[in-house]
Amino acid sequence: MAETTDLAAWTCPLPLRDSPTIVMGHGGGGAMSAELVEHLFLPAYSDAATGELTDSAVLPAGPARIAFSTDSYVVKPLFFPGGSIGDLAVNGTVNDLAMSGAVPLYLSTAFILEEGTALDELGMVATALGDAARAAGVRLVTGDTKVVDAGHGDGIFVNTAGVGLVADGVDIRPSRARPGDAVLVSGDIGVHGVAVLSCREGLEFGTAVESDTAPLHDLVATALATGADLHVLRDPTRGGLAASLNEIAAAAGVGVEIAERDVPVPPEVADACSILGLDPLYSANEGKLVAVVPPDDADRVLDAMRAHPRGTRAARIGTVVADHAGMVVARTGLGASRVVDLPPGEQLPRIC
Amino acid sequence: MAETTDLAAWTCPLPLRDSPTIVMGHGGGGAMSAELVEHLFLPAYSDAATGELTDSAVLPAGPARIAFSTDSYVVKPLFFPGGSIGDLAVNGTVNDLAMSGAVPLYLSTAFILEEGTALDELGMVATALGDAARAAGVRLVTGDTKVVDAGHGDGIFVNTAGVGLVADGVDIRPSRARPGDAVLVSGDIGVHGVAVLSCREGLEFGTAVESDTAPLHDLVATALATGADLHVLRDPTRGGLAASLNEIAAAAGVGVEIAERDVPVPPEVADACSILGLDPLYSANEGKLVAVVPPDDADRVLDAMRAHPRGTRAARIGTVVADHAGMVVARTGLGASRVVDLPPGEQLPRIC
Repeated sequence: MAETTDLAAWTCPLPLRDSPTIVMGHGGGGAMSAELVEHLFLPAYSDAATGELTDSAVLPAGPARIAFSTDSYVVKPLFFPGGSIGDLAVNGTVNDLAMSGAVPLYLSTAFILEEGTALDELGMVATALGDAARAAGVRLVTGDTKVVDAGHGDGIFVNTAGVGLVADGVDIRPSRARPGDAVLVSGDIGVHGVAVLSCREGLEFGTAVESDTAPLHDLVATALATGADLHVLRDPTRGGLAASLNEIAAAAGVGVEIAERDVPVPPEVADACSILGLDPLYSANEGKLVAVVPPDDADRVLDAMRAHPRGTRAARIGTVVADHAGMVVARTGLGASRVVDLPPGEQLPRIC
Repeated sequence: MAETTDLAAWTCPLPLRDSPTIVMGHGGGGAMSAELVEHLFLPAYSDAATGELTDSAVLPAGPARIAFSTDSYVVKPLFFPGGSIGDLAVNGTVNDLAMSGAVPLYLSTAFILEEGTALDELGMVATALGDAARAAGVRLVTGDTKVVDAGHGDGIFVNTAGVGLVADGVDIRPSRARPGDAVLVSGDIGVHGVAVLSCREGLEFGTAVESDTAPLHDLVATALATGADLHVLRDPTRGGLAASLNEIAAAAGVGVEIAERDVPVPPEVADACSILGLDPLYSANEGKLVAVVPPDDADRVLDAMRAHPRGTRAARIGTVVADHAGMVVARTGLGASRVVDLPPGEQLPRIC
């Protein structure tokens, strides 16, 4: 049992930022988020935690092997071009499961509502959530609703957790990246971040960009069906492609080299990023994946993804290398190289 | 995909309260919470939802049968006599799994933090959470952290989801209550609600009452080991014993009769409730269960619970009856009867 008076018993120096309080960047999916896990949650949990508290854990459950994942969604605004917090809450968690190679089966839904939230707004979010679950073929099986007093929430926060089944022989995780492996993406990068930003209060700008929010487990099944040995799958959400590639480099102790001109970025996204001073590599995606596959499997995985509606613009963007372990390097169009750092905090707060 | 402009497309008349917005009572675990599920979430989810979105769902996962549950915790204050939000986040979800007769295995943890929250406070909560997980024998396997801007959260909200394994032949659910069944509780009632209230800003009153937050799966295993056919188990949290008994009566289409003088209520809880104008039957518990068992099994389940450290004050408090289906009736000390309604909203907001 916790003592109620002895808060000073916990001292947690966080190397990246000498602040005694939570800042927005701790929720950005970048270096500060990783630091919070490494220097606060893992020491606090000690041997009660398994592994690194990753996006999705693969676990034995009696005779089965399940994947288990959770995410809370705090996106602002609740509705944006191409989707809503309800779509994200389903597709985001489905995709975390899919990145383990799991077949998603069940979702829980837990709402934290602010007193005064309009019931019709909640109804619209719940309908979007139900529609997305139906589209993804997952069942909503258990739920919870809490209400907090006005001024202590922000309309609607949703958490979903998900359970999926992992087939025998499937072993997909960031630490399996090997030098020589090909790095693929399933399509256009940076779309979700720009779509949400385009309608945010004070920042409205005209754009035809709609969020790419979509479930990816069927695309993963298609890639698996080629018989390729998929080493790594990641969905580059918060922190964008840059965060996912850095995570892979760190987990496997390898370097990653990408060719900037081979990364598919739609012109509208490039234009918006250029106006706003953003980098598409750091902009969130909600319907794209990164795949790391052995070089001999690259072409058949690419072909299979391109033949799938969610992967028509799939591309090979780079290679895993033995050099500069833990680091991601981009070759620019001019032939120069630049380091693609793990973003410290977040380029765009509350993007998912 | 949701339309961003057509919120009016959703109309959700809620019978209990003609309000177009969320009120605190929608999160209280009483009639208004049930109404939100019945009239908003279930129609919105339509055939994407399985069953009634109950506290814990029992599901096939390949060759295994799993229980899956979720709860968000928004208790205020974060630390209270006998525990903290970290203890509740583990024990509450462990207990939801245990009420299906599952052996809890894994928890996810998802934090929604308010910008400006003290890191040492977060560290204390995470340490309490890790300690509680270790004490309950469950593993923390996956996690998420989001940060919302100052003024749009309230320090620390935590969601946990849990997965457990259900043994062959175990079938414990509210709809299995049968007329003639005995109604048991595992110990003193109303403790958690009074403990939290006793330290709430503006309400501080001296009391020795500490929260009963505790994991109950081992007590359930002890009851199952007697060979008794446990029909129903519930943990009477939000809404208290009254809400749990009403839920059972409604689910099984039966009546429940309890004898008020047989319900174990500690004198300090009775005193505090009397001063505050509260009813212990509606005060939350975080380490107690209600069991509904066939009459011939009642004594051995009671004996087994009393021999367990979490059940020393277990008691038989009533009987399931065929009369007044869906209704809970209490016989008072004076021999009169009163209806124990499902509370509409919540007696004590943000109690868990």
